[in-house]
Amino acid sequence: MRAATIVERRIVVTDHPDPVPGHGEILVAMRAAGLNAADLIQVMGAYPAPPGSPQDIPGMEIAGEVVAIGAGVTRWQPGDRVMAVVGGGAQAARLVLHERLAVPVPDGMTWEEAGGFPEAFTTAHDALFTQAGLAMGEGVLVSGAAGGVGTAGVQLAAAAGARVTGSVRDPARRPDVASLGAEVIDPGELRHHGPFDVILELVGAPNMAANLDVLATHGRIAVIGVGAGAAAEINLMALMTKRARIHGSTLRARPLEAKADAARRIEVSVLPLVAAGRIRVPVTAAFPLERAGEAYERFRAGGKFGKVVLLNAE
Amino acid sequence: MRAATIVERRIVVTDHPDPVPGHGEILVAMRAAGLNAADLIQVMGAYPAPPGSPQDIPGMEIAGEVVAIGAGVTRWQPGDRVMAVVGGGAQAARLVLHERLAVPVPDGMTWEEAGGFPEAFTTAHDALFTQAGLAMGEGVLVSGAAGGVGTAGVQLAAAAGARVTGSVRDPARRPDVASLGAEVIDPGELRHHGPFDVILELVGAPNMAANLDVLATHGRIAVIGVGAGAAAEINLMALMTKRARIHGSTLRARPLEAKADAARRIEVSVLPLVAAGRIRVPVTAAFPLERAGEAYERFRAGGKFGKVVLLNAE
Repeated sequence: MRAATIVERRIVVTDHPDPVPGHGEILVAMRAAGLNAADLIQVMGAYPAPPGSPQDIPGMEIAGEVVAIGAGVTRWQPGDRVMAVVGGGAQAARLVLHERLAVPVPDGMTWEEAGGFPEAFTTAHDALFTQAGLAMGEGVLVSGAAGGVGTAGVQLAAAAGARVTGSVRDPARRPDVASLGAEVIDPGELRHHGPFDVILELVGAPNMAANLDVLATHGRIAVIGVGAGAAAEINLMALMTKRARIHGSTLRARPLEAKADAARRIEVSVLPLVAAGRIRVPVTAAFPLERAGEAYERFRAGGKFGKVVLLNAE
Repeated sequence: MRAATIVERRIVVTDHPDPVPGHGEILVAMRAAGLNAADLIQVMGAYPAPPGSPQDIPGMEIAGEVVAIGAGVTRWQPGDRVMAVVGGGAQAARLVLHERLAVPVPDGMTWEEAGGFPEAFTTAHDALFTQAGLAMGEGVLVSGAAGGVGTAGVQLAAAAGARVTGSVRDPARRPDVASLGAEVIDPGELRHHGPFDVILELVGAPNMAANLDVLATHGRIAVIGVGAGAAAEINLMALMTKRARIHGSTLRARPLEAKADAARRIEVSVLPLVAAGRIRVPVTAAFPLERAGEAYERFRAGGKFGKVVLLNAE
């Protein structure tokens, strides 16, 4: 099979042996696979794939057709449309994964959308609801709202009855984010807004002092991205006075049972909204698998609204 | 009535009018009332009492006898032995409080112990269990284990089946803390211990970097005291990789319903242990109310094992 492959800190597309599904596993023919910031870091050599995932094929989310099933698989048949968060290896023509990681692709969802859905929506849902316990009526700030997780977070919070504010640095992206249901602000104006019950922080440490200032009593900050820096100065007295908490999280390092649990929550809470057309997956650009290098360049250039996705026609 | 009173940033004992219980309130004759670090800060003018509490009479915990009840009180009768966390005013011969804040003093518990129990044990229980979700078998670090909240935290965590480590700076205090059920370590040696699932941080910001280093995956840090400093540098990437969280909390500012809820949890989970003799309240020194100034000097001097308490014989 063909696969995006890390060779000397660059992405090339090379041949690999087809993987074979083991007990409880399914073989998926990739139709679409999104790029994520962690892929870029992995290419640079700083974020090795977890044990059990291929070290040289990036990709943490996949959508495609089941083409074979291993012994003991109970839920899926060849021909089923599935999507999943995985530890790595998704940017390839074929991928083997445990059947409990997969969720069905709703009718009417395109492959392009499905390939950009799993990582962003699972990350945002886990952070907003499983960790931060977001409740109807609460005020949410999505800090860095124009990217993959940001656009997912805005839509999920709005669908749950929260009041959503999105901070977006690039003025050109603000109308797009507003169209998803958020009041959109310049991050430099944050101190004039709030208080917020939940903050989804996708940019990093430089935002944390202002985040604490605009956090409500009982507020929760979920830190999911630190592209702008990881060393934050936190005023612990403010954290105490507000009876607040700060979460950090990643999906990739979680064991099978935790990833499968997150998949079940997505199936219960988010797929019905997708099926009803209440949630969309903004895709800023799609490239054939053979042009994976260009897709990485596009991702690296920034200024995106939503996802960059690889497609595989086969 | 007589009461410890803040006059020009010092504690003196002066006369005040007796308070009168309103609807749903009880009048308690104080028998014992513990000192807490927040009292010292309030005397210095930096921590005003919450609305509804006297601004000039300190004291956030009380034990005593009900001497009168207001209209609508259903649970208590004159003569009942009660104790409670309150917003202020406890270091006085009489205090009015809402009946839902009080819990019964178990038979066999002395007034001295009861006066030092509510704030420390409610704070420690709330942080370890309600916030951090401590589970049987987990490893706990109590950072600053010799004080009031520290000795409470060690005993509660041990009683819940956790493995407890206490860090204690003063070597002279370490055997006392060990007698409560903790492995006791020098805070400077922390990096050789752990990983810990839950850290109860009672000292402050200088400990946070080492705390993050010794925190387990899914670890929770509950920050309750910042006497050594509040400005902490936090590595958000470490927080993400460990899928960890940091809580800050105080009891004093909580509204009636939150304080009453905390009291119910203490009643369910901690008072049975007190009644069974499985928990003790270490009291390092007790002073009559008229000598409140000396009690504050003793508290300020440090090097305590457990509580400093005021007593009122009347």
